[in-house]
Amino acid sequence: MSKLRVLCFSLSIDGFGAGPNQGIDNPLGVGGMDLHEWFIPTRAFQRMQGNGDGTTGVDNDFAERGFDRIGAWILGRNMFGPIRGPWPDDLWKGWWGDDPPYHTPVFVLTHHPRASIQMEGGTTFHFVTEGIHAALKRAREAAGGLDVRLGGGTATIRQYLQAGLVDELHLAISPVILGSGENLFAGLDLAKLGYKVTERLTSPAAMHVVLTK
Amino acid sequence: MSKLRVLCFSLSIDGFGAGPNQGIDNPLGVGGMDLHEWFIPTRAFQRMQGNGDGTTGVDNDFAERGFDRIGAWILGRNMFGPIRGPWPDDLWKGWWGDDPPYHTPVFVLTHHPRASIQMEGGTTFHFVTEGIHAALKRAREAAGGLDVRLGGGTATIRQYLQAGLVDELHLAISPVILGSGENLFAGLDLAKLGYKVTERLTSPAAMHVVLTK
Repeated sequence: MSKLRVLCFSLSIDGFGAGPNQGIDNPLGVGGMDLHEWFIPTRAFQRMQGNGDGTTGVDNDFAERGFDRIGAWILGRNMFGPIRGPWPDDLWKGWWGDDPPYHTPVFVLTHHPRASIQMEGGTTFHFVTEGIHAALKRAREAAGGLDVRLGGGTATIRQYLQAGLVDELHLAISPVILGSGENLFAGLDLAKLGYKVTERLTSPAAMHVVLTK
Repeated sequence: MSKLRVLCFSLSIDGFGAGPNQGIDNPLGVGGMDLHEWFIPTRAFQRMQGNGDGTTGVDNDFAERGFDRIGAWILGRNMFGPIRGPWPDDLWKGWWGDDPPYHTPVFVLTHHPRASIQMEGGTTFHFVTEGIHAALKRAREAAGGLDVRLGGGTATIRQYLQAGLVDELHLAISPVILGSGENLFAGLDLAKLGYKVTERLTSPAAMHVVLTK
């Protein structure tokens, strides 16, 4: 069966997946961009941006894996945008412009219904109001035998971990402290939930750790 | 003035400096030994054990730095031993045998007075009942212009960090999850306390991050 995978999820050494005070000017919270220093220079990311080449090696290998065999994505509402509460209109279409980097169906968790949005490049945003299990079911169906990538944010990943639904969790620990923000681990005992470290590789910019059950 | 330094302090990616259930059979708590995989093979540690040579490189450089220019140590009670409450007798003299690896005066924080113990190789254990400021004052005096190393455990380091007394904090993040145990970061905002990452180096076994104010 297709797996639910968290890939390339960057964390500070104090466990934060985003900084505090997310908003239109700080999609990743204050300081949150620093978590992604390992990812930005990679060939995988630079090509996504249409910038020609980038670095190869451990970081790029993980970055490329993040888009390999992925047939659908799941995102939390806050990762899709800074708007809270009911959608005021249909103007907000994500942080990523007309051609988002997903190129698959993307299921956005929200408490507020909204019509699907077809973007350029094969990305379609669907809004799921029936909770995490329903979103996973729909994403699996849409993935056509490929895997489902759970993009984030932190709170959404925590919900899926607590429900025992994540098959693979790749964390990229960045040499950064954020001090506050969204903590992945607080009150979550991953060892007790059955996760073990099954892969570990370091680059100068990050420590990559893969957890599976 | 001599600095108060935390050096070679190993943490899991979920922030634990020791596993749960410390006791006579698990001085570092269950699973806690895994945190030190980067340290064990180093030349610095192997020579301390009288085992001839070990590895050199990033991990050994940090391991050696941990014993360089150190004139005194401070340890929490739990790092000194598994006994809680009043000392039942004078038999317990630490985990380390007759010749502990400190070779300096060592100030052990405790609520229960006890006479100092002179060990082989220059280590003397002094027991301080007047709190963390008093222990630091006595350690600074004893260090004779050299630095004071705060050995741990996690709870003791947290106290000194919260009091703003730590000048340098070297963390070695190990690719390990513990799930529970003693968490260094819980409720502690190191960014707000003024710490910044001033050094970062990875080895295959650890991500070394040095924080200073």
